Amino acid sequence: MIPNTPEPPYYAVIFTSILKKDHPGYEEMAIRMEELATQQPCYLGIESARSGIGISVSYWKDLESISNWKNQSEHLLAQELGKTKWYKSYSLRISKVERHYTFETN
Amino acid sequence: MIPNTPEPPYYAVIFTSILKKDHPGYEEMAIRMEELATQQPCYLGIESARSGIGISVSYWKDLESISNWKNQSEHLLAQELGKTKWYKSYSLRISKVERHYTFETN
Repeated sequence: MIPNTPEPPYYAVIFTSILKKDHPGYEEMAIRMEELATQQPCYLGIESARSGIGISVSYWKDLESISNWKNQSEHLLAQELGKTKWYKSYSLRISKVERHYTFETN
Repeated sequence: MIPNTPEPPYYAVIFTSILKKDHPGYEEMAIRMEELATQQPCYLGIESARSGIGISVSYWKDLESISNWKNQSEHLLAQELGKTKWYKSYSLRISKVERHYTFETN
């Protein structure tokens, strides 16, 4: 569930959102978008959690692959629905991962 | 609940974790650590969610402030307890935020 990403540097898109009280169709679209993201070139992984706010961090090889994903046609539709129907507010940050540490119990 | 951070560049620490089935004392320590983080110099904000995996993204002015927080004495103890008692696995990424977009409904 925690993705294995390659050695840095690579990019992280940190998407934080608060849903409107009613958000019909959101869950289905979120699942579809995660599925679609995994099919994009240079996609490295995704982590998502929601409790009050939602945080979804997707990892990408470079800025170009993030730009391509942003402009993918089905994703553009989801973004539009997000703004008009589902999200009360959101924040999207594009960041360059410089260091990565992991810990795992035996 | 979504922090207002300044204009990039600044840094994000992306901490993703999976808890052991039993993790006594974890919630109290997590609350205390968030409270303590907000008191550190050059701390800019934090976002946390947990559903299956936990994701906590904290924002900092620079690498030095992240290093200082890592070595804060009470935080060092929490890190040790995390490794020995609470976390099944975790992943910690240090990234430089280059772009930031926000959306808010009226």
